[in-house]
Amino acid sequence: MALKIIVDAFGGDNAPLEVIKGCERAVRELGVSIILTGSEPKIKKCAGENGLSLSGIEIVHTDDVFDIHEEPKEIIKSGKNSSMAMGLSLLAEGRGDAFVSAGSTGALVMGATFIVKRIKGIKRIAPSPVLPGDNGSFILLDAGANTECRPEMLVQFAIMGSAYMEKVMGVKDPKVGLLNIGSEETKGRELEIEAYKLLEKSGLNFTGNVEARDMPRGDVQVVVTDGFTGNIALKLYEGMGSFFAKKVKWIFSGAGKLGALFSMGKIKQFRKQMDYKEVGGSALLGVRKPVIKAHGSSDGTAFFNAVRQAKRCIEGDVAGVTESYVARMSAADKE
Amino acid sequence: MALKIIVDAFGGDNAPLEVIKGCERAVRELGVSIILTGSEPKIKKCAGENGLSLSGIEIVHTDDVFDIHEEPKEIIKSGKNSSMAMGLSLLAEGRGDAFVSAGSTGALVMGATFIVKRIKGIKRIAPSPVLPGDNGSFILLDAGANTECRPEMLVQFAIMGSAYMEKVMGVKDPKVGLLNIGSEETKGRELEIEAYKLLEKSGLNFTGNVEARDMPRGDVQVVVTDGFTGNIALKLYEGMGSFFAKKVKWIFSGAGKLGALFSMGKIKQFRKQMDYKEVGGSALLGVRKPVIKAHGSSDGTAFFNAVRQAKRCIEGDVAGVTESYVARMSAADKE
Repeated sequence: MALKIIVDAFGGDNAPLEVIKGCERAVRELGVSIILTGSEPKIKKCAGENGLSLSGIEIVHTDDVFDIHEEPKEIIKSGKNSSMAMGLSLLAEGRGDAFVSAGSTGALVMGATFIVKRIKGIKRIAPSPVLPGDNGSFILLDAGANTECRPEMLVQFAIMGSAYMEKVMGVKDPKVGLLNIGSEETKGRELEIEAYKLLEKSGLNFTGNVEARDMPRGDVQVVVTDGFTGNIALKLYEGMGSFFAKKVKWIFSGAGKLGALFSMGKIKQFRKQMDYKEVGGSALLGVRKPVIKAHGSSDGTAFFNAVRQAKRCIEGDVAGVTESYVARMSAADKE
Repeated sequence: MALKIIVDAFGGDNAPLEVIKGCERAVRELGVSIILTGSEPKIKKCAGENGLSLSGIEIVHTDDVFDIHEEPKEIIKSGKNSSMAMGLSLLAEGRGDAFVSAGSTGALVMGATFIVKRIKGIKRIAPSPVLPGDNGSFILLDAGANTECRPEMLVQFAIMGSAYMEKVMGVKDPKVGLLNIGSEETKGRELEIEAYKLLEKSGLNFTGNVEARDMPRGDVQVVVTDGFTGNIALKLYEGMGSFFAKKVKWIFSGAGKLGALFSMGKIKQFRKQMDYKEVGGSALLGVRKPVIKAHGSSDGTAFFNAVRQAKRCIEGDVAGVTESYVARMSAADKE
């Protein structure tokens, strides 16, 4: 039976048009079926006006949309009839296999925690974007949900991230690095010093501290840190990307047509490497079933990629792999 | 009388040759005199072999060099005869007006704190690099010394950074931003939430939170955060800079001579904008007298710029301005 991906039709800046575009393409190219949550008349009207087929797409109607400026906890209160909460409930009930939304990250983390629930033994859910590096991409977690963490949470992030990189990104035995302010194991705050010790005996492929300076090299595939630091690092990564893209454009504005022509292929290749749309979105790791947070400014391609990413999470059984690792580890601790 | 800058002749990867080069040029172009600390025979031999003049340069001899891998606190113990500790002592004794070293940041912070001492009322010394932004440069502090901070320390960083940007960089009424994971005042950890409130009533030109994504724009001139987060942000900034410089080079390797010719001026301009050597080094703010940490890989130009930066700190009386601001604020608190 085809996998069924639930998608929030009213999350993000370009909803519902770009959501529908991405889903139509996903049905056609990925062989999945889709459940869209949100206003049925609006979805049908938008699809009709833009000549998009809804074949393979079921709609579960709700009029409510979760406001991005609302407090995250409202997702299980005043927002419980929103297209986001509805999608999470359908996932919890087993009506679909994964959920994609471009709505509020905070609400999605909160809703995933209380509606879909965490993997057994996992303390916190972490938004986990995959970022481009020079020698390959890497996953960064926690990227913003848990601003204060205990050392054992960082170990769990390492387990979750390793499972993802291995099962979804096909990296064998991914290297894990602890984001820190120096390479020695005595560096950092109490959090890093304790997490270092725990990671060393975790059985993961822990290669020690990674300094922020070395992150863009992409020498390790899993970078763990608390949600405050991770959010700063993620957003600086994005901000520097935009800054440099602008600069490259400026430099080339004087290169003349000939120079631009020679370099255009490489610029495109570079932009593709740096483009979040290629990745899809951030997996919310630690949830019992795959939940993908698509970027707020996602277009049809980004939504298509997010659905593809959700499909790969199911196929790779990231949650199952994480759960058995955590169970093995806690059994070893008891010995 | 000419200002006298004390320079550690044996700090950094390129000591003493590049240090001497920078100092020779500083004597010639800035009208300052220099005290070099370190092995007199080695300095004289190096200068002689490379045809560098030591005119205007006094040498205060010591054989010891502080090992960069040594624990910072050793600067006031086993390292107290090192060229770094000697320079700090000369500064404390009033034999010179400012000190420049490219040695260990940790040791320099420790030595500055205990040998030169802090400005009255200032709780912590912060390494404070000036970083390039699209709309102008900005100072980031604390960039690594105090991994855990209290809210009032962030306010002091804001005062120190504002004094520096105004008096050394010539920015009138510099804007202050609190590095945070969102724009609302309720965002962040207890540290940010409390610091936000204190900054609002500080009398500084506080413009609210700044997200890491917006840092490269350079819309605010003073960015304050704790030393852990600041160090991650600084090193990621540097790392992304190298990554993109490499990419730009790669893109141009196919642009053909004509295209490269058209763009070379802009590339050079961009590189200059991103180059730490142009700035000099990181001022250690909060010390009673100017102490500049030059980059470990500084060349003659970078040392020259660090000496120029030290001179500007003296001329702008950054420490005096900071002290009177802190005094005014604590008087206002008592009212």
